[in-house]
Amino acid sequence: MVKITSCGLDFPTAPNLKKALAEAVDAGYAFICVPIAHPRYKRVITVEDHLGKVDFQALAFTRSDLLLSCQDWNNLVLGKTSEWIDLDSCDEKIRSHSEEVLNQEIMFATHLGLPAALIRLHGLEQTNLARFVCGKVSMENIGYQADFWFIVPMISPKVQADYYRSDVPESKSDENDTWHWWNNMRLTCASDRKIGLCLELSADLPSQDILNRWLGEPIKNLMIPTSLFLTNRKGFPVLSHAHQAFLKLCALQKIQLLLTGANRHSSYKHYVQYLEHVYQLAASGDDVSSYSKGFEDHLQIPLQPLMDNLESNTYEVFEKDPVKYTEYRHAIYQALVDRVPEDEADKNVQVVMVVGAGRGPLVNAALYAANSANRKIKCYAVEKNPNAIVTLYSLKAEEWGDKVEVVACDMRLWNPPEKCDILVSELLGSFGDNELSPECLDGAQMFLKDDGISIPCEYTSHLCPLQSHKLYNEAKHTNQEHRAHYTRFEMPYVVHQLNTFSIAPVQPLFTFVHPNKDPVKDNRRFKKLTFKIEQDSVLHGFSGYFDTVLYKDIRLSIVPKTYSTGMFSWFPIYFPIQHPISLKKGDELEVNFWRLINKKIVWYEWSVSKPVIVPIHNSNGRSHNIGLF
Amino acid sequence: MVKITSCGLDFPTAPNLKKALAEAVDAGYAFICVPIAHPRYKRVITVEDHLGKVDFQALAFTRSDLLLSCQDWNNLVLGKTSEWIDLDSCDEKIRSHSEEVLNQEIMFATHLGLPAALIRLHGLEQTNLARFVCGKVSMENIGYQADFWFIVPMISPKVQADYYRSDVPESKSDENDTWHWWNNMRLTCASDRKIGLCLELSADLPSQDILNRWLGEPIKNLMIPTSLFLTNRKGFPVLSHAHQAFLKLCALQKIQLLLTGANRHSSYKHYVQYLEHVYQLAASGDDVSSYSKGFEDHLQIPLQPLMDNLESNTYEVFEKDPVKYTEYRHAIYQALVDRVPEDEADKNVQVVMVVGAGRGPLVNAALYAANSANRKIKCYAVEKNPNAIVTLYSLKAEEWGDKVEVVACDMRLWNPPEKCDILVSELLGSFGDNELSPECLDGAQMFLKDDGISIPCEYTSHLCPLQSHKLYNEAKHTNQEHRAHYTRFEMPYVVHQLNTFSIAPVQPLFTFVHPNKDPVKDNRRFKKLTFKIEQDSVLHGFSGYFDTVLYKDIRLSIVPKTYSTGMFSWFPIYFPIQHPISLKKGDELEVNFWRLINKKIVWYEWSVSKPVIVPIHNSNGRSHNIGLF
Repeated sequence: MVKITSCGLDFPTAPNLKKALAEAVDAGYAFICVPIAHPRYKRVITVEDHLGKVDFQALAFTRSDLLLSCQDWNNLVLGKTSEWIDLDSCDEKIRSHSEEVLNQEIMFATHLGLPAALIRLHGLEQTNLARFVCGKVSMENIGYQADFWFIVPMISPKVQADYYRSDVPESKSDENDTWHWWNNMRLTCASDRKIGLCLELSADLPSQDILNRWLGEPIKNLMIPTSLFLTNRKGFPVLSHAHQAFLKLCALQKIQLLLTGANRHSSYKHYVQYLEHVYQLAASGDDVSSYSKGFEDHLQIPLQPLMDNLESNTYEVFEKDPVKYTEYRHAIYQALVDRVPEDEADKNVQVVMVVGAGRGPLVNAALYAANSANRKIKCYAVEKNPNAIVTLYSLKAEEWGDKVEVVACDMRLWNPPEKCDILVSELLGSFGDNELSPECLDGAQMFLKDDGISIPCEYTSHLCPLQSHKLYNEAKHTNQEHRAHYTRFEMPYVVHQLNTFSIAPVQPLFTFVHPNKDPVKDNRRFKKLTFKIEQDSVLHGFSGYFDTVLYKDIRLSIVPKTYSTGMFSWFPIYFPIQHPISLKKGDELEVNFWRLINKKIVWYEWSVSKPVIVPIHNSNGRSHNIGLF
Repeated sequence: MVKITSCGLDFPTAPNLKKALAEAVDAGYAFICVPIAHPRYKRVITVEDHLGKVDFQALAFTRSDLLLSCQDWNNLVLGKTSEWIDLDSCDEKIRSHSEEVLNQEIMFATHLGLPAALIRLHGLEQTNLARFVCGKVSMENIGYQADFWFIVPMISPKVQADYYRSDVPESKSDENDTWHWWNNMRLTCASDRKIGLCLELSADLPSQDILNRWLGEPIKNLMIPTSLFLTNRKGFPVLSHAHQAFLKLCALQKIQLLLTGANRHSSYKHYVQYLEHVYQLAASGDDVSSYSKGFEDHLQIPLQPLMDNLESNTYEVFEKDPVKYTEYRHAIYQALVDRVPEDEADKNVQVVMVVGAGRGPLVNAALYAANSANRKIKCYAVEKNPNAIVTLYSLKAEEWGDKVEVVACDMRLWNPPEKCDILVSELLGSFGDNELSPECLDGAQMFLKDDGISIPCEYTSHLCPLQSHKLYNEAKHTNQEHRAHYTRFEMPYVVHQLNTFSIAPVQPLFTFVHPNKDPVKDNRRFKKLTFKIEQDSVLHGFSGYFDTVLYKDIRLSIVPKTYSTGMFSWFPIYFPIQHPISLKKGDELEVNFWRLINKKIVWYEWSVSKPVIVPIHNSNGRSHNIGLF
């Protein structure tokens, strides 16, 4: 496959392929893009028979496959299909002929092992082309099939032409919005993962909203026409600030580039050098990515810490978070200072219970906070994982001594010798309550004095509607063998989201407060959220986040707008839906979310009730639930 | 289960169940409908705990199950849930309490083995109720679960109240259209087959279009209030002509009735006697149903006569069609008269080849026609099924003699000793070309003289968008073990459609003409059809039909508007779609249909491109295709 974050060079025609490749490589390009058909062969094929009796493969229409090694075909060449092909012509003969020719080219691209065949879209009407592509990508039990990447201009040629004409009113039809060209194709092809986008950068960029929507699409190549380049004082090609800014967003997703058009400067090599420079600038400004490298858009099943014991490795990764434990220290510090007046500092010993102590980071945070605040504490470290207990005992023996009591017990079963002032826990998941913090803390709060406090004292899950061809396909292809086909679309996934588009601003969902003073503790929830849709888009599910109040104004958040910078302990969560839903600008999207509980499990259900109705997902927790034991 | 086409009696309250049942049975009713909860128990349950620690089942809230035998509970009683229950109240306490109570009643209905629990819908907002119902019906691997039938008034109480007030403008909102109450519930519950309708007949009937839409829904009971009855001259209760007409349509679908309301005449028995009388009238006017009895809404996989040999039984059924062979006789008669002038009748011997002769009905038709027309013919009976050949030889030996030559051969392989004047075939399926008549006749037309004719000479498939909860569920539950889950929604089914609603008028699709004089014979087809939607509805797929010109104006048709009365050889075809689509009045529904061919198979693909995009169905014929061999 073509390398990621590399730049290719597009040739409108390549009579001498080896020469073209040598020139491109020489100028620093990683691959080339050439027409699949050779210009020598004008294929005015008379339609003799549609049933395949004439074997088109036998007709010479392009170069021999012997020209390059297999490895070079597989790594260095993208194939473009002939632009005159029109599978949706009103003329049945042209349509039929087009299909023969396209089939011939696609078969040959697949024969060569090219990573992808590129097809230029010319408008909305392409149902027959979609049917053709669908037929290729949905073939089961066959060998290799080249991917299909659709060349789509960022702005339609017609809109671009009208741009400087004041007499033409701005049109809002789907036909003029090239995103719909791609989207119609994608939806008709059942959102297959073998289709992608070759997005052609325009001279005038659309609004940031529209750019963001594109960035949520599977852009396999960003095509950059040489005509977009300006010339700097030294005579080298450079891009405008707007283009640079967009390019940097593409760099974060490691989108491959493809230079197209005639050389308008001294050499093709200066374009690629400049583009690499912009990409490097973007990478150097991206400090979070080192923690999340390798996790981009990779789906993980959420942890079930109540049912499973975490591994040493997991503890170690999370203990390294540079933000989380600092904030816990601040919170405990502030709580101790508030609870113990300066003049009682010597005699008042605050009892701190860390429930779910793991390998001790919160115990350390408490000791550190007490030391800084100059307050006395007695600390209990309660942990159910027998493997982590080994670490806790060793820490007690070597560092903590009498200040810490290690309790090897499930917090829901423990009978403590005394009540505590401060109950400290870190039981939150990416969606806040999804690792059953409410149930655990409702149980543990019996350890708490009447005026005792819980750190955290409050947390809220947040939700936002999501467009992501990528995540949807990741969910679709998770391995759920022997389970019902809907299962994969009825479970939340933890995922570092990159190739996604947030359709509307995040909204808060469910809030839990500790200690819970309600006479009847009901941790079930039901809420309907309404999102205003600002742009035509496709709903592939929902992003989930949380924020929490540890104590007073000390908070942790993975909600994008209030993100605790530098924190890496939580990736967002992704709730898929079974089938993508088309949304129109102005629509109201109404989403229903439930948190439900029976004697054994806790689970979420979700559905959409506007603008269309989507059946209840994960009914009875049939596909995913969180065990209480 | 409660008997089909029976009438029940509804009790608003039943303090003495045994007495109520005895009275109802005595008056001629087949079952009763009573509240599940007993009026004695006012359940002001304080919500103590939601987690099930208080077992509501243990609280007395209704009659003992010992009151009736299991068989009586199972056959004679429908249970109504309490009407004050509101699972979608804004008040969280009411919502929560409602859910406990509803759960208690449903569990008890299931415990008793009642066939269904009835829930009255009060409006559109019912997402939480839908989630509850979905949770019950989607339970896997459990025992018996009572069905859910939703009581929905045909006209909303609000609209009914405004009906006589000229100052209130007619409202078009979904809230006022009670069909949406049901439809929202159905869609949120994933169109499950365990949910149904209890439709409450209104005093003023809506337009026939709206009535037809209701008739496409799974009406389990038509509730008829006693207040709708008029009193005839003899003092007996009768219904208006409009109500009678609707009732007769219900009778065709054998919809069960449920009388409700106070007795306003001398005895309850006169209502049921009258209703039975109306049902009997409807049945006596329905002459087609005797042929199709037992096939109502029953899906069959279409025949593959090219790959499989038909059985004797199948031949026998089809040979009995009172219309088909009569029309073939007329067609052959007319063709013979046209081709042979009166004065050549003695010497001109027309060669008639029956291709696919089966057990000989078309040979008989040809001989009969020749006799009537007083023309001479020589007949070839070509048949590939070796079992049918036995019959043909015996007919030749016993009846036909020299007039008929039996040829045991696949028509595509036969090398005839002479060319024919008339090629007669009956290779059409419910969708016209779907049993590969085009391919067979394209091959067989080489037997035909240059001026020879084919009977049939033309046929056209027809399509119409369909709403049918019933058929969709039938397709969903066909047994396709070990095949992909989408398979069942990607194949056409032959089905006698009853519980369906045609969303828009039928349109012609693909036409084939014989003999095919095109230099290149291309039997592939692609057509986009646009249907104008006149009413909010749900698309569950498409109905397929065909009509054919045998000769000149002699036609056969199963298209509803031009149906060949009395013919029973073909039921329509049903093309499902994977997921129901909501359609709005004024929408344009754009459907794409393809007939595709490769060297081995013929298949259809279909998709919807407006108002929403539905992925290509049956790509590459992956779920269903028709073998050429």
